[in-house]
Amino acid sequence: MNDALAKRLAAIVGDRHVSTDPDVLAGRCVDYTGRYRGHAAALVRPGSDDEVAAVLRACRDAGVCVTVQGGRTSLVAGTVPEHDDVLLSTERLCAVGEVDVVERRVRVGAGATLAAVQRAATEAGLVFGVDLAARDSATVGGMASTNAGGLRTVRYGNMGEQVLGLEVALPDGSVVRRHSEVRSDNTGYDLAALFVGAEGTLGVITALDLRLHPTPAHRITAIAGFDDLDALLAVGREFRDADGIAALELIDARASALTAEHVGVGPAVDGAWQLLIELAGDVDHTDPLAEALEHADLAGEPAVGVDGATQLRLWQVREAIADVLGVYGPPLKFDVSLPLSTIVEFASAATELVAEHAPEAIPVLFGHVGEGNLHLNLVRCRLDEDRERALYAAMMALIARCHGNVSSEHGVGTRKRDYLTMSRTDADVAAMRVVKTAFDPDGYLNPAVLFD
Amino acid sequence: MNDALAKRLAAIVGDRHVSTDPDVLAGRCVDYTGRYRGHAAALVRPGSDDEVAAVLRACRDAGVCVTVQGGRTSLVAGTVPEHDDVLLSTERLCAVGEVDVVERRVRVGAGATLAAVQRAATEAGLVFGVDLAARDSATVGGMASTNAGGLRTVRYGNMGEQVLGLEVALPDGSVVRRHSEVRSDNTGYDLAALFVGAEGTLGVITALDLRLHPTPAHRITAIAGFDDLDALLAVGREFRDADGIAALELIDARASALTAEHVGVGPAVDGAWQLLIELAGDVDHTDPLAEALEHADLAGEPAVGVDGATQLRLWQVREAIADVLGVYGPPLKFDVSLPLSTIVEFASAATELVAEHAPEAIPVLFGHVGEGNLHLNLVRCRLDEDRERALYAAMMALIARCHGNVSSEHGVGTRKRDYLTMSRTDADVAAMRVVKTAFDPDGYLNPAVLFD
Repeated sequence: MNDALAKRLAAIVGDRHVSTDPDVLAGRCVDYTGRYRGHAAALVRPGSDDEVAAVLRACRDAGVCVTVQGGRTSLVAGTVPEHDDVLLSTERLCAVGEVDVVERRVRVGAGATLAAVQRAATEAGLVFGVDLAARDSATVGGMASTNAGGLRTVRYGNMGEQVLGLEVALPDGSVVRRHSEVRSDNTGYDLAALFVGAEGTLGVITALDLRLHPTPAHRITAIAGFDDLDALLAVGREFRDADGIAALELIDARASALTAEHVGVGPAVDGAWQLLIELAGDVDHTDPLAEALEHADLAGEPAVGVDGATQLRLWQVREAIADVLGVYGPPLKFDVSLPLSTIVEFASAATELVAEHAPEAIPVLFGHVGEGNLHLNLVRCRLDEDRERALYAAMMALIARCHGNVSSEHGVGTRKRDYLTMSRTDADVAAMRVVKTAFDPDGYLNPAVLFD
Repeated sequence: MNDALAKRLAAIVGDRHVSTDPDVLAGRCVDYTGRYRGHAAALVRPGSDDEVAAVLRACRDAGVCVTVQGGRTSLVAGTVPEHDDVLLSTERLCAVGEVDVVERRVRVGAGATLAAVQRAATEAGLVFGVDLAARDSATVGGMASTNAGGLRTVRYGNMGEQVLGLEVALPDGSVVRRHSEVRSDNTGYDLAALFVGAEGTLGVITALDLRLHPTPAHRITAIAGFDDLDALLAVGREFRDADGIAALELIDARASALTAEHVGVGPAVDGAWQLLIELAGDVDHTDPLAEALEHADLAGEPAVGVDGATQLRLWQVREAIADVLGVYGPPLKFDVSLPLSTIVEFASAATELVAEHAPEAIPVLFGHVGEGNLHLNLVRCRLDEDRERALYAAMMALIARCHGNVSSEHGVGTRKRDYLTMSRTDADVAAMRVVKTAFDPDGYLNPAVLFD
């Protein structure tokens, strides 16, 4: 990085918030799974939206690319810089405002962690609608940028549905502030919806107004086991649009075998396929759930949690999966969306594909079956680069054959940009590029992600 | 219109689907309320998405503007052409596909009416999530273009939340087809969300994949009367995020007086302010509703509908409003969004404003209190153009003072484009223009709406 830019950045954010220390940069250039590395010229930590905008303008003037970093929990290497980029960290934009309990909303900085937002909501007697395993590190800015989903999407929707307003610094150095106080905000283009899910390629989200929800008075949790994936999906189909649905999570037997072996958690029930169902709300859904499970084709008795302690134990069976995927080194991860009708075909064909390409790997399938958003993780997958690329491409092709989307809640990042056209037509990608070029004609913002 | 363009259009859509008949055009150039008139050079009715794209390209090549028309029920004169435009009608794109009862979705042409979609859903045992008074004329393409809300928004969200996929013809003559079969469709920019609510300024929506919902097994409807608007809002606040909420509609006493006088419907209860509440779902919400109303500060006994016939009667009190607003000629209409906290202030100040500017007018306030989306109609408002403009501007300023949005479910159209900056900052409008210019650099598509 040239001295002039270094000086300009230091003048904007203050000396101690610019670093070119190789050790600091190396730590920021590796991805969450530890599989992918990049290189950067500097780290900049702006302290306000205006500082973010000024950093963007300075880098653009200098012809230097910017990669935005939140909690760096991307699972598609979305924050790994491929050039000698300036890393723009949102970590200092972490204020969590006062919760408005009447309007049920809170304004937070993009760098606030999910856990911090959840804590603020809980203290106000409310619930934040998105929950996911990386909650202690993932930032709401990054989550909005990928339109993250997670464990509660079936009830509250993705991150985008929680966004009532936002502040975004644009590549040209301007700041759009859309802090509408109304629920129904329909005046002009829905720019918020454009920046949500844009993976930081159109602007840098600096703050968000987030919607909060009432805390349900009643909650009932169960894990049911099935020998047959089709029977599980029949129950999923019945419940995914049901009143009070609060979670609908698939867990395969290989996932619970891993958690049982490595952390002594689960399985809660017998069966090759398990479904965690939770219903919650102002009314008690225990009876309808029990009745539905009675009529389902289960592998045995379901485990039902009426009290908080049992519910927690059941959730641990699901949550422990995140902790054991890396026990044999970084897993190879696939985050896909499928119509319910092709999940059986996908599960079976994917297993065959793995057996063929990586016989030593353990394929683990779990995720948010309500939206058809599944995570396939290949644990103990130790392929060289070429063989991994071949397997990756074959899996993407399989997803497309199953009418699925190659990327879902994790985003496209750098990992899937070559496969974008498997889920989007050429005209669609062309229209996306029209938008990208309009906001970032020089292509200097998050240049490695989304497009090839 | 020059002959070359006329010939080219006829070659695209067929002779009988191009008209330059002055009588035909005159009928298409007046708005729904009858207040506003424009002029057009021709009417074109393409029969496919490719024909729409070809028409757009032909008009762009000829330097002729295009105004898109669906059911022409816009209440902000959004389909009234201001130049000698080509009118592009979506009326022939009215196919309603087969309902997929498993995935709960249906593909429909943009020109299908809301009623047609509702009928298809009902026949499949499902529900379409948006309902509004103009259902027999309003088309789903137009409704998506304005992100229409209506009577069920509090439960199912606006039109945008129903859109699972869409097809849109762009100003450059290309067609983007995004017919994802997955629920969680997060790959790349959410272009669908950009075209939804864009009021036809970025492209012409030609087809939609719409989400459908299960039919609730139980339903309970009530109208409660209040002397005090604050007391009504307290109930609204309690219910707007409640389990099973299906409708939350404000009706003022002046609205029910009009319906009682002119169509013999209502009022159902005493009180200056009335609230229609409906709860629906897999479980019966009669008890929680009764309990909540017992604790509310009502003007008298609520009217409760447990059976279908009574529920229909209660709904007629609300639905009849649409039929009587025009009894003294076209009303002056305001469609606004407000935070719940300023609705009392707005209602009182708006009444004063009307008394001052148009003492002969009857101000009627009703609408979707769950989202703070209210309709203020000035019945018997017979101001000359200058005085009407003064009142309109004063009302917009009042809305802004109340932290509201000057436009809500009806859109900005041509009526409110001068007031866009009251709800959007300059940087926001500039960013919107960046998007507009990127898709339509010549500004020939729906040139009269949204921007001034």
